[in-house]
Amino acid sequence: MTAAAHRVVIVGAGFGGLAAARALKGADVAVTVVDRMNHHLFQPLLYQVATALLPPGDIAPAVRDVLRDQHNATVLLGEAVGFDVEARAVEVVLSDGSHRSLGYDTLLVAAGATDSYFGHDEWRAVARPMKTLRDAVELRSRLLAAFENAAAAEDPVERDRWLTIAIVGAGPTGVELAGQVAAMARRTLRRQFRGLLDPTRVRVVLLDAVDSVLPPFPAKLRARTKRTLEKLGVEVRLGEKVSGVDADGVELDPGGRRLPARTVVWSAGVKASPLGEELAKATGAETDRKGRVLVAPDCSVPGRPEVFAIGDMISLGSIPGVAAPAIQEGRYVARVITARLAGTRPPGPFRYHDRGTMATVSPGDAVADVRGLRLSGLIGKLAWALVHLTYLIGWRNRIAVVAEWTWMMATGRRSQRIILEPASEQRITGTHPG
Amino acid sequence: MTAAAHRVVIVGAGFGGLAAARALKGADVAVTVVDRMNHHLFQPLLYQVATALLPPGDIAPAVRDVLRDQHNATVLLGEAVGFDVEARAVEVVLSDGSHRSLGYDTLLVAAGATDSYFGHDEWRAVARPMKTLRDAVELRSRLLAAFENAAAAEDPVERDRWLTIAIVGAGPTGVELAGQVAAMARRTLRRQFRGLLDPTRVRVVLLDAVDSVLPPFPAKLRARTKRTLEKLGVEVRLGEKVSGVDADGVELDPGGRRLPARTVVWSAGVKASPLGEELAKATGAETDRKGRVLVAPDCSVPGRPEVFAIGDMISLGSIPGVAAPAIQEGRYVARVITARLAGTRPPGPFRYHDRGTMATVSPGDAVADVRGLRLSGLIGKLAWALVHLTYLIGWRNRIAVVAEWTWMMATGRRSQRIILEPASEQRITGTHPG
Repeated sequence: MTAAAHRVVIVGAGFGGLAAARALKGADVAVTVVDRMNHHLFQPLLYQVATALLPPGDIAPAVRDVLRDQHNATVLLGEAVGFDVEARAVEVVLSDGSHRSLGYDTLLVAAGATDSYFGHDEWRAVARPMKTLRDAVELRSRLLAAFENAAAAEDPVERDRWLTIAIVGAGPTGVELAGQVAAMARRTLRRQFRGLLDPTRVRVVLLDAVDSVLPPFPAKLRARTKRTLEKLGVEVRLGEKVSGVDADGVELDPGGRRLPARTVVWSAGVKASPLGEELAKATGAETDRKGRVLVAPDCSVPGRPEVFAIGDMISLGSIPGVAAPAIQEGRYVARVITARLAGTRPPGPFRYHDRGTMATVSPGDAVADVRGLRLSGLIGKLAWALVHLTYLIGWRNRIAVVAEWTWMMATGRRSQRIILEPASEQRITGTHPG
Repeated sequence: MTAAAHRVVIVGAGFGGLAAARALKGADVAVTVVDRMNHHLFQPLLYQVATALLPPGDIAPAVRDVLRDQHNATVLLGEAVGFDVEARAVEVVLSDGSHRSLGYDTLLVAAGATDSYFGHDEWRAVARPMKTLRDAVELRSRLLAAFENAAAAEDPVERDRWLTIAIVGAGPTGVELAGQVAAMARRTLRRQFRGLLDPTRVRVVLLDAVDSVLPPFPAKLRARTKRTLEKLGVEVRLGEKVSGVDADGVELDPGGRRLPARTVVWSAGVKASPLGEELAKATGAETDRKGRVLVAPDCSVPGRPEVFAIGDMISLGSIPGVAAPAIQEGRYVARVITARLAGTRPPGPFRYHDRGTMATVSPGDAVADVRGLRLSGLIGKLAWALVHLTYLIGWRNRIAVVAEWTWMMATGRRSQRIILEPASEQRITGTHPG
């Protein structure tokens, strides 16, 4: 790296941003990665943190640690808040509260997606999201406390309300979480609430407005997933539109029917990071109704060849909002940058190589659609485990995760059953109206 | 256990309470363990959670999990708030906010100790305690954020303020934390702030009003500990009385000298749980100036043979406030209870079998005083590791902790470097005045 190296600023250390940064290792550029969190989050296993199976550190390596050996990369902990594309600078609020204007020669915005409550942000206080590590740790406390509160409740109606977990949204996150919560209730907690709770009264209710679980999957795998969930004891209620959420439960359309539940999880919708709108405002790009930036075929922002956007915050054909395309886009943009610097012909338009989709359903069952090859059951689960371990960063974390899975399968026990708040404070963080 | 089994209520699932509960396994009693936290905390390794080495779950098994196979034990998550010794009942606020009066035939109060700011509770907001798992997780965020904020700071004075970690209190917690923070700064973070930070500017300052580290240890080991800390780069400042703490640092007596520091840890004092005073009020027992209950030689409360108190909340001779005596007292009280029920002669007065004290200083060095046998260096460290792993509950946790230690020694990396809050919120949780 020379003093006058080409400056690449990457906003976001998710799958896309980190893939781009790593693909630029060895290139004659000075990479700066800015993220508002100090860790890269492996979102596909987030539900296993929420269900007390994995500690947060196993799926969230520090960004500095991931890039520790990449000498042309600098990491800054800070939040990008705006872009000045004329001056070629990103406005960043750093962790100490100071503002900095980061100059770039090439900018890559990979800020991802956030949860969407479809205009009902007031539901968020009750129907908890599942996007960040903090969300997962909070949900873990709420789930564990719900069982404790059920054990404490003397009124059977109140007890059942604590024992009902409603999950809104039957995409991969909702399906995987529902399966794990059911497994946690029936296997891990069974003996441990001896005499205090009847584990068969635990209700895990998976709701979705559309008439299928896992909509992007082939019909046969969808039907199988629904059956597997039901065998685990999950109530799958499809075609149910949520019209309200409060501390007592969920209200369903039509007819204002109520599902009493003290724990509600929101896995129904995502929208692009607000930085999508900021980038559009700064560059004149268009966004779709989910706030995603409409990029050119090479992932650059129209009219701004030095500004790229990738991942869940862009709209580019019918590419799904999962890890694989974000990673491929990150590597692709790195190739475009190095080709330009070398003066060679840049690669053609970005093309997504769809290697398949998969979702896990129960400890011994997953569904996968790999280029038309449909896997399910234990074979599906093994494929799922292999792919997830491959994408997880670092051997330490891979080994730790396999060890936790093995321990859980052998004993049914979960090692991370931590409620950090004392009992006297759980009413504040919980959803209890008292 | 028969329907009319003798009811033993144990308040507190720390070392003492849990030892008593486990020692009553198989006895014809109905044990109820009440704790305000859902987990048993292995406090001796808390500093390793605060320094991002171990995940919380590795040192904090769920109380329900520990007692899962003990059929005569029930666990309740709730906070004991008072005692009615005439009616033989404990008043408990359960996790769901409901109140319950728990009747007992024998009561064992083992509520432990809490931090003491010697009448300066206003310091707590800045000088953070190290007693609970939440304290450790919060301190971890603060320590990690301090380095990030130092990297972000452009003013060198401000940067040095972020790089100064002041630890008040040179007992085992302060000494062990100082050694680990120094190791984290110099080994783990060295390469990772390349160009942003000079790791040699990190200052770990260990302060104490008395003129020695680890006061209960023999003079030779104390001197050695001080030298080892200094070799690690810790500034050991003894005979320094703290007269004030604010967001900018620590004020020292005499003369109002200031130590500028953005991160201050309080490991200076403990006092008995407030339940000590509650128990004294209910029974007429006396307490000492640390709020500890003065118990009879058999750990019962004078005049109330059916009420026992053990551990850090009692005063009984010159027994130190560590894990070993609490465990021995718990087992002893269980023997007294079973002897009374069997109508056999109860054991004589409680006698503490002092098996020694130990403290770790650096990754390869610990000091131990085992019945006059003084160990230090690597031998001391191995003894330290063996004893700590023995007291840690559960094979899963023992194996996980050894694996993390091995990984850290081999690579210098720490897997749990998690700041849950985004950068934009760290000014709120941090000590920055802005």
